[in-house]
Amino acid sequence: MNFSSKLIEEAVEAFATLPSIGKKTALRLVLHLIKQEAEISEQFADAILRMRKNIKECKKCHNISDHDICSICKDPKRDASVVCVVETIRDVMAIEDTGQFRGLYHVLGGVISPIEGIGPTELNIESLKERVQKDGVKELIMAISPTIEGDTTIFYITKQLKELDVKVSTIARGISFGGELEYADELTLGRSIIARTPYRLNNG
Amino acid sequence: MNFSSKLIEEAVEAFATLPSIGKKTALRLVLHLIKQEAEISEQFADAILRMRKNIKECKKCHNISDHDICSICKDPKRDASVVCVVETIRDVMAIEDTGQFRGLYHVLGGVISPIEGIGPTELNIESLKERVQKDGVKELIMAISPTIEGDTTIFYITKQLKELDVKVSTIARGISFGGELEYADELTLGRSIIARTPYRLNNG
Repeated sequence: MNFSSKLIEEAVEAFATLPSIGKKTALRLVLHLIKQEAEISEQFADAILRMRKNIKECKKCHNISDHDICSICKDPKRDASVVCVVETIRDVMAIEDTGQFRGLYHVLGGVISPIEGIGPTELNIESLKERVQKDGVKELIMAISPTIEGDTTIFYITKQLKELDVKVSTIARGISFGGELEYADELTLGRSIIARTPYRLNNG
Repeated sequence: MNFSSKLIEEAVEAFATLPSIGKKTALRLVLHLIKQEAEISEQFADAILRMRKNIKECKKCHNISDHDICSICKDPKRDASVVCVVETIRDVMAIEDTGQFRGLYHVLGGVISPIEGIGPTELNIESLKERVQKDGVKELIMAISPTIEGDTTIFYITKQLKELDVKVSTIARGISFGGELEYADELTLGRSIIARTPYRLNNG
């Protein structure tokens, strides 16, 4: 693409680094910002800068947060004895959107995947064990995508917690095998939390 | 959508104001920025701020520019006697991409459209007349989208310039009627500039 302006070119390049945004889309976004008042662009850039600078990871559940402890962990009305274990912060948002869960969360940061070089130490499993030991957690709901890696992760965590007095359940497998959790519809996802099934080692 | 973070929510809202970006896409972009180093977000925001603050309109051709006069108007190797009249700055980029045109441009800023309340005075027509009178322009190539509004605009401009010694041509109608100029492929658009036809009032 031919730009008569270096400034435009740089802004287009910046947008085009984002996922799913090509150069043509990037140009459309930049020209949109040019058409608007300069203030709009300032607010836009400011929202991104402020977000990136101040965003924290909750020290308890590893969710993204504005403070050291996130608003969900801090909420006294939520049931701290039930913890929903998820892969990513997007899964937290998806489950919150269902309105079906009033416990707390624990974000693993992924699943065990030898192919991608992700072992148990790369995930927030040790801190989960600590929470179970110290915070009076009675039940863990494994809301992990039903893939081979997800199943391996559930198996590993359950084994780690075997000696502890905690019930482990998985969300009901209403979600098709191989499906991604974040694309499930709210109803299915909500139901699968209610109809969770106890998890058994060795299938029994 | 449920955000546990006000910062994330604001950044998502900011992205979602852009055209063709919904909340789900906005969230994906924001989470992408969070995963990257903070520097990436800073560079991104900076590119937008710098662009929006310093971008100018070329005083001659009304193209966007880093300086008072754009790099195309300033280029001594370009033929100042041929001016290509276009609707928007995107059309300038599209024609530059064909590599078929070595003259200058004039950006009207739109076409005459009574329905949208755009009359001749809203467009850069007066400054085009001035350029023809003062800058020794010998030919105007009307690279306007072949719509009713576009045709009206070409008709109006040609009538305005009737007394002046300037040839008016339109790009060859290789582009389908009702089509948008910026989505034409480079070959068709390039050929249509080469095979431009003289414009006649009253069809003859």
